[in-house]
Amino acid sequence: MAAGRIVTLTTDFGGADHFVGVMRGVILGVNPAAQVVDLCNSVNSFDVLDGALTIAQAYKYFPADTIHMVVVDPGVGSARRPLLVTTSKHYFIAPDNGVLSLVMEQEERVSVRHITAEHYFLQPLSNTFHGRDVFAPCAGWLSKGVEPEKFGDEITDFVRFTLPKPKMVAERAVKGAVLKVDKFGNLITNITPENAAAVFAGKALKITVGNGAASGIFDNYAQGKPGELFGVLNSMGFLEIACNRGAAAQVAKAGRGSEVLVEW
Amino acid sequence: MAAGRIVTLTTDFGGADHFVGVMRGVILGVNPAAQVVDLCNSVNSFDVLDGALTIAQAYKYFPADTIHMVVVDPGVGSARRPLLVTTSKHYFIAPDNGVLSLVMEQEERVSVRHITAEHYFLQPLSNTFHGRDVFAPCAGWLSKGVEPEKFGDEITDFVRFTLPKPKMVAERAVKGAVLKVDKFGNLITNITPENAAAVFAGKALKITVGNGAASGIFDNYAQGKPGELFGVLNSMGFLEIACNRGAAAQVAKAGRGSEVLVEW
Amino acid sequence: MAAGRIVTLTTDFGGADHFVGVMRGVILGVNPAAQVVDLCNSVNSFDVLDGALTIAQAYKYFPADTIHMVVVDPGVGSARRPLLVTTSKHYFIAPDNGVLSLVMEQEERVSVRHITAEHYFLQPLSNTFHGRDVFAPCAGWLSKGVEPEKFGDEITDFVRFTLPKPKMVAERAVKGAVLKVDKFGNLITNITPENAAAVFAGKALKITVGNGAASGIFDNYAQGKPGELFGVLNSMGFLEIACNRGAAAQVAKAGRGSEVLVEW
Repeated sequence: MAAGRIVTLTTDFGGADHFVGVMRGVILGVNPAAQVVDLCNSVNSFDVLDGALTIAQAYKYFPADTIHMVVVDPGVGSARRPLLVTTSKHYFIAPDNGVLSLVMEQEERVSVRHITAEHYFLQPLSNTFHGRDVFAPCAGWLSKGVEPEKFGDEITDFVRFTLPKPKMVAERAVKGAVLKVDKFGNLITNITPENAAAVFAGKALKITVGNGAASGIFDNYAQGKPGELFGVLNSMGFLEIACNRGAAAQVAKAGRGSEVLVEW
Repeated sequence: MAAGRIVTLTTDFGGADHFVGVMRGVILGVNPAAQVVDLCNSVNSFDVLDGALTIAQAYKYFPADTIHMVVVDPGVGSARRPLLVTTSKHYFIAPDNGVLSLVMEQEERVSVRHITAEHYFLQPLSNTFHGRDVFAPCAGWLSKGVEPEKFGDEITDFVRFTLPKPKMVAERAVKGAVLKVDKFGNLITNITPENAAAVFAGKALKITVGNGAASGIFDNYAQGKPGELFGVLNSMGFLEIACNRGAAAQVAKAGRGSEVLVEW
Repeated sequence: MAAGRIVTLTTDFGGADHFVGVMRGVILGVNPAAQVVDLCNSVNSFDVLDGALTIAQAYKYFPADTIHMVVVDPGVGSARRPLLVTTSKHYFIAPDNGVLSLVMEQEERVSVRHITAEHYFLQPLSNTFHGRDVFAPCAGWLSKGVEPEKFGDEITDFVRFTLPKPKMVAERAVKGAVLKVDKFGNLITNITPENAAAVFAGKALKITVGNGAASGIFDNYAQGKPGELFGVLNSMGFLEIACNRGAAAQVAKAGRGSEVLVEW
């Protein structure tokens, strides 16, 4: 199996600087036939969990053999290792800080290699921009057909975390947390049909978050009245607190990390 | 006539989440030879008029047979229909909420189909992300050569609106409105040479908007003094109130919806 | 030598409007085989120095024969000339306002042409959007194989500036300035190993900027304690004042143009 020519970018580099553009240049410099596709370059700065959520929601939609570069890397320049991860259908290049943890939860078989083949790195190697000097050129060479085993040996002691799970706090109450606020101000929680089935059983329920409360789970955004908070099982498979044509985060004065209580 | 491989994206999804990246993945997953091009993913949230203005200013510059996906869709999950619109040179995939109204104003012949061919949708179909589950896969299949008539039947009762027109409020005065504020703070109005020829006739005139006033229409931005407001017939064909190297919106304390009075 | 099919974009147009999307359309409209790649579209509005820094840090990483369009153009519509610049490996299309000055510093041989071949421009030619009507179509034609000499004659009186250099203000003290604040809040200065070698000689030193002070130059970000300011020789080759997982600009209350004093 050889990697394809599509390389996606998931970073916390934003758009205001040359950072992402330079990485596109490095990949194309190694392999002018590569197709570089932005997955998301506005992960919250230094936020490995936000990066992990972003790539985990998105990677499966790309064609088989896509290479996903994930560079949320607060430890750049320190001893954390660069990794090449192979799943049944995709390739990932990322720092060893757990940013691929939620991808791994979805995959049965995963091969993780420590990238040690420094002849694929740019020289001179900077201490502060491994996206440019390490990850991008390796993605370029991988897309050009270099086999994964050429980059380094398999390891098993890589960093991996699990999402915080919601907890039962009474016979008919579960407490979770807001993982993320999206562009529309929707509050995405860690409550799912898998870890809290009762929440989605169709009973009357009350959801409390920040200063706000919702009284049910709707099928879609258009069912909510303007200004009203409601729950929705979102496209990522999480309970989301939303507000039709409004920002739930503002209405509830809640944000990432806020507690969410669901009672039924 | 078959659609080409270029698919453009115009959405209000922003760049902070995985939304746009996932749609790129879905299109490429269906047709790895597609070329996905961002037209603009920062339409104001839920703002169908802003989306309509954006696509109407831009689509004609793309090559013939380009597919334009326009997903500004506050009614996602409700009964609003997904549409496939064909003009003499381009294809459009969008919700039936009027977001293509200003494209249709520029086109003589338009065919509008209600997309009902659910076998082209992703399964399971979410209620909250039709950009991913409906619009993107249809764009992918269209770019792969599936003929428009395979997606559903033609309809004529689609949603369509017209831009608010400026009004004569005295013998030598017209009142319009600000449609949009651009990145530079320029105020784009609904006043054009077509609907208010006298404004552009080269006479001495006074333009009032918010707390500001301009005393003429200049040929280009560089003619204005720093801090001075002036009018300009912009590249979209609208009267724009601008400020050389400054933000007219801040100088005039005006924004979208502000009244604009032109007297001569 | 013929230009390649990769065209990069460096502009101050941002993502909120149709501007960048339209330019992509124009390039593809001229040459559907072009590959348009964003280098950075969030240069500070009207900020020629910021544009000059952005392109100078990035262009070399792209493959030979890449065409770089740089449109930071506060004088659009005035008499400033459109330029086609050729270096040993790359092509540049930009207004004649100095935005390529820092590229030219890095190149031994540079050919600068005044683009006068108006038959390559879009018609009608607007006064306010030369990115769309002049620069993008010229980039498209260049990527299609039109030879540079077809666009106009060589000139030597183009605009060019040099970066402000740091100054010795005492026997063991140099004063520089912040050129730019990046997405992470890092303060990028004009102090380099070339123009102030003593700063990087490994001696004990004190860096003062805004309300903040740093006591040394570290190898990478991870060496800093949270909240601590420190210097780092960054990936662009400049002295940068940074803060591990924090924004130095906020900690020091400093920004573009702030004075930086280094004493040793």
